[in-house]
Amino acid sequence: LLNEFTLIEEFFTKKLPSPTDVLLGIGDDGAVLKVPADQALVIAVDTLVAGVHFPVDTAAADIGFKALAVNLSDLAAMGAYPRWITLALTLPAMDTAWLQAFAQGLFTLADQYQIQLVGGDTTRGPLTITIQAHGFVPAQQTLRRSGAKIGDKIYVSGTLGDAGLGLQIALHNINLPSTEEQFLLQRLNRPLPRVELGLLLRQFATSAIDISDGLLADLTHITEQSHVGATLTAEQLPLSSALSRSLSHHEALQLALTAGDDYELCFTIPAAREQEFLLASNQHPCTCIGFISEEPGITLVDFPHSLLATGYRHF
Amino acid sequence: LLNEFTLIEEFFTKKLPSPTDVLLGIGDDGAVLKVPADQALVIAVDTLVAGVHFPVDTAAADIGFKALAVNLSDLAAMGAYPRWITLALTLPAMDTAWLQAFAQGLFTLADQYQIQLVGGDTTRGPLTITIQAHGFVPAQQTLRRSGAKIGDKIYVSGTLGDAGLGLQIALHNINLPSTEEQFLLQRLNRPLPRVELGLLLRQFATSAIDISDGLLADLTHITEQSHVGATLTAEQLPLSSALSRSLSHHEALQLALTAGDDYELCFTIPAAREQEFLLASNQHPCTCIGFISEEPGITLVDFPHSLLATGYRHF
Repeated sequence: LLNEFTLIEEFFTKKLPSPTDVLLGIGDDGAVLKVPADQALVIAVDTLVAGVHFPVDTAAADIGFKALAVNLSDLAAMGAYPRWITLALTLPAMDTAWLQAFAQGLFTLADQYQIQLVGGDTTRGPLTITIQAHGFVPAQQTLRRSGAKIGDKIYVSGTLGDAGLGLQIALHNINLPSTEEQFLLQRLNRPLPRVELGLLLRQFATSAIDISDGLLADLTHITEQSHVGATLTAEQLPLSSALSRSLSHHEALQLALTAGDDYELCFTIPAAREQEFLLASNQHPCTCIGFISEEPGITLVDFPHSLLATGYRHF
Repeated sequence: LLNEFTLIEEFFTKKLPSPTDVLLGIGDDGAVLKVPADQALVIAVDTLVAGVHFPVDTAAADIGFKALAVNLSDLAAMGAYPRWITLALTLPAMDTAWLQAFAQGLFTLADQYQIQLVGGDTTRGPLTITIQAHGFVPAQQTLRRSGAKIGDKIYVSGTLGDAGLGLQIALHNINLPSTEEQFLLQRLNRPLPRVELGLLLRQFATSAIDISDGLLADLTHITEQSHVGATLTAEQLPLSSALSRSLSHHEALQLALTAGDDYELCFTIPAAREQEFLLASNQHPCTCIGFISEEPGITLVDFPHSLLATGYRHF
């Protein structure tokens, strides 16, 4: 068996001054942590399995970065500020070079937010990474999936569908010019969680979710939990120029609607506060893609007929 | 891909009235939780991999029970009261009967302590279970590995080595009379975390750890982190009658010293408080196995010569 203590100490113990909210970190039976009295604790846990959530030949540093990013994206969708993580790492064998690269990728992102690794477990088995992220939010400002109201504007951050096309590149299913390939692989392997936008949305959004399973699937969680519907217009979907240049308009829209792994935020803003939100969010590219409507389900306007998946109404 | 929402809702959402410390449970991007202002948050995470941490033919209900038990044992060793868990479950395929049994085993133990499942992730892949347990302890009463003092008495709860022999039964390496088999398999598959004892030890223990890797290995964490040594006497090790009847004294002692998976607590009590502790702990079988000494390492007294492993001093 791997020696978890040696592993964790060697690769994952950062010699930083302990912040005051970590009373006890790695090295005992558990970590002891202090949550500020005026904050709620927000937790999110996600597992990445090799060959399922990333191609088996993905670089270790990218796996480390992404395993954290997907969890920070969940915290961002709750409006939470990230603070601590635990890492449960299952590895087929001890591989020093792999571990160094994995840790380097993980801490590249963790250090941006001064996130502390406070505990974990390392086991032998098929490559699987489970990270739990812990953050804070004032309870009353939590972003939920359930608060969207009829008439709210629907927004997404960034651009959609890039990671879906990036996956086709990573799987060697297509070749593109190297500028496009680089951008799209970066979008797949190094998604940037929208932490700062999530914090801003505490003041504006009536609902929020992160797009991990594709826009239609994730927006459906908002409409179902809010007991409303949504209307989207094709021409409003934000597409990167790399995506637009590489695919037909039809294919690009399909990826934007259904491909997962973009880790952008989808959220709703009351129409009356839209201008104020746009002024406040000018450093975070966001695009209005439609509005919350009464009829249940998602209504797609002006989408190519051939594209429309079963189960979504269209006009 | 498995639909995590359906899975989690079907098998793992308990229709209990939400306790006031769970502001938002399963069904959003994250759970939102409230830690009482006078308590520190204690977290522990452990992964079980099929074929590594349990035989592949282990019953699903036993896997569910044990995956939680090992984490509660960590919280007990910190003196923490368990409150919430998350479950990251990787499964080779959707198997309703397996999931039902797994959930039943998990909640058999969770319900004993009114522990809430507040989040999780289900993914497809080789069977792997990662549970993170969350509990509370007043910060000043945390049990650590680092507080043992020279002259303290060393205690363990329960009996040692049973799970090690249980594993040999589960692997069909030996046959024993059915009464012994039943007891030893129970000890392997359904370890009872010493939660109540951990709470009591807040008042008495100078250090504590749970025995997951074997007494010598785990006691060594206490001695190293406390910068002390330990002296153990062979005849003091608590052995179950099932273990004593099934093995030679030599073999029984070897399992008691080195076999893992017992999930008993090992802890130290100041000699001056020993009588008070024994009175207070009379409902929790505990045995004094030695004392904290000055010379580093673990000194074994009166153990059979043939048994002694390299690296441990003996007289």
